[in-house]
Amino acid sequence: MTQVVILGAGNVAIHLYKAFEKAEDVEVIQVYNHRPEKLVNFSETSTTTAVSELKEADIYILALKDDAILKMANIVPDFGALYLHTSGGIGMDALSKFRNHGVFYPLQTFSAKRAVDFNQIPMCLEANSEKNLQKTKKLAAGISEKLLDTNSTQRKALHASAVFVCNFTNHLYTIGADICQKNDLSFDILKPLIKETASKIEELSPEEAQTGPAIRNDRGTIEGHLELLTENQKNIYELLTASIYKLHGKKL
Amino acid sequence: MTQVVILGAGNVAIHLYKAFEKAEDVEVIQVYNHRPEKLVNFSETSTTTAVSELKEADIYILALKDDAILKMANIVPDFGALYLHTSGGIGMDALSKFRNHGVFYPLQTFSAKRAVDFNQIPMCLEANSEKNLQKTKKLAAGISEKLLDTNSTQRKALHASAVFVCNFTNHLYTIGADICQKNDLSFDILKPLIKETASKIEELSPEEAQTGPAIRNDRGTIEGHLELLTENQKNIYELLTASIYKLHGKKL
Repeated sequence: MTQVVILGAGNVAIHLYKAFEKAEDVEVIQVYNHRPEKLVNFSETSTTTAVSELKEADIYILALKDDAILKMANIVPDFGALYLHTSGGIGMDALSKFRNHGVFYPLQTFSAKRAVDFNQIPMCLEANSEKNLQKTKKLAAGISEKLLDTNSTQRKALHASAVFVCNFTNHLYTIGADICQKNDLSFDILKPLIKETASKIEELSPEEAQTGPAIRNDRGTIEGHLELLTENQKNIYELLTASIYKLHGKKL
Repeated sequence: MTQVVILGAGNVAIHLYKAFEKAEDVEVIQVYNHRPEKLVNFSETSTTTAVSELKEADIYILALKDDAILKMANIVPDFGALYLHTSGGIGMDALSKFRNHGVFYPLQTFSAKRAVDFNQIPMCLEANSEKNLQKTKKLAAGISEKLLDTNSTQRKALHASAVFVCNFTNHLYTIGADICQKNDLSFDILKPLIKETASKIEELSPEEAQTGPAIRNDRGTIEGHLELLTENQKNIYELLTASIYKLHGKKL
């Protein structure tokens, strides 16, 4: 049984904790957070708000925001265990003060209110030795089928890609919802289209799947749309239209 | 049995034709296109490349690009039937030369190579009389469960929203694929995230679902990402990050 302490109590910590609860060979023996009110989500295990009270464990997971990872690494003692952070954005060397360290980055978007199936989440793994990598893989294998060896540059690239396909995409959904709302239309109308757009790339590459007025730089349609938009939405529309036309226009 | 002639042979025409083939009370008696090679996809029905050979039907569907709709409306005679176009971008009055006219706009992204389930596609309908609207609805009900009365302004707003949530989103997928490819990573790694991003909004509003470094304007992470991007990708990243921060930043 691998004993784990989770440092952090945000969305990633909550979802990791739930996933480990279902795993056979993993036991989360403690969750740390400096704000006690955040620890209510972890009532099934021991919790603490003091670094001095941290239990001894096999693996410590720093499931924290990027800047908090660096701060925590400074104050947490090196018990000789394995220390992993869960960030896509920062290098493994943020934990280099610990003899055994690595990265345990789940490539997914986590919201407190929504359950996720960890089994299909790509786990991007890295460690400072082969032995530590094997330990990290064993831990990840308990919660997901998809284990990936990625170095820090690749992980950063995946994180940047994730910003485009997840964070920015979701912002485009927000703009779609805003346009609907201003025109007395339910956002629900767009949901089949959103679903199909995401499903389409299971069969076609995104380049092949591209449709719409931007490919042909169809100015009549484009100008009609711009009339309906706020200044900010217009800027986004124009920039993305130009980018699509640049990529696809020549092929027509 | 409603007899239909389809004018056009592109992706919308192909998918409409397939949907009507399965409908009980609809028969596509002819498909017109001026380029004979495009008509090979319609081997189960009569086809023609000459407007003078158009058969008499109950409904003529102009499933054409926006500019072609206007051109065809000029040369197709008014047989007294109902004339519908399938465009989200142009008004119903593009067909006002016909005594009976309306709009039959399926809000979906169509690619030749990919099958779609018409049943869940919102059909945005409009007609120049109550009687014509009923005929249009009856035709739509044969292929979809989701019928929507939308005026031309609302349809244009839906079309603009669709550009954001479908065309632009797909372009962000293309950028994600490009970043992966340049870093020896398979685009498949991003697919669970893309799927979850699209599924999340079934439960949460897109505003609630927003995650990522842009919300907090986390410059450390953002600068790290910008280093990996092309000039064009950088411009898109900066603009969308600013837009997300503008909307969400104040709430933190």
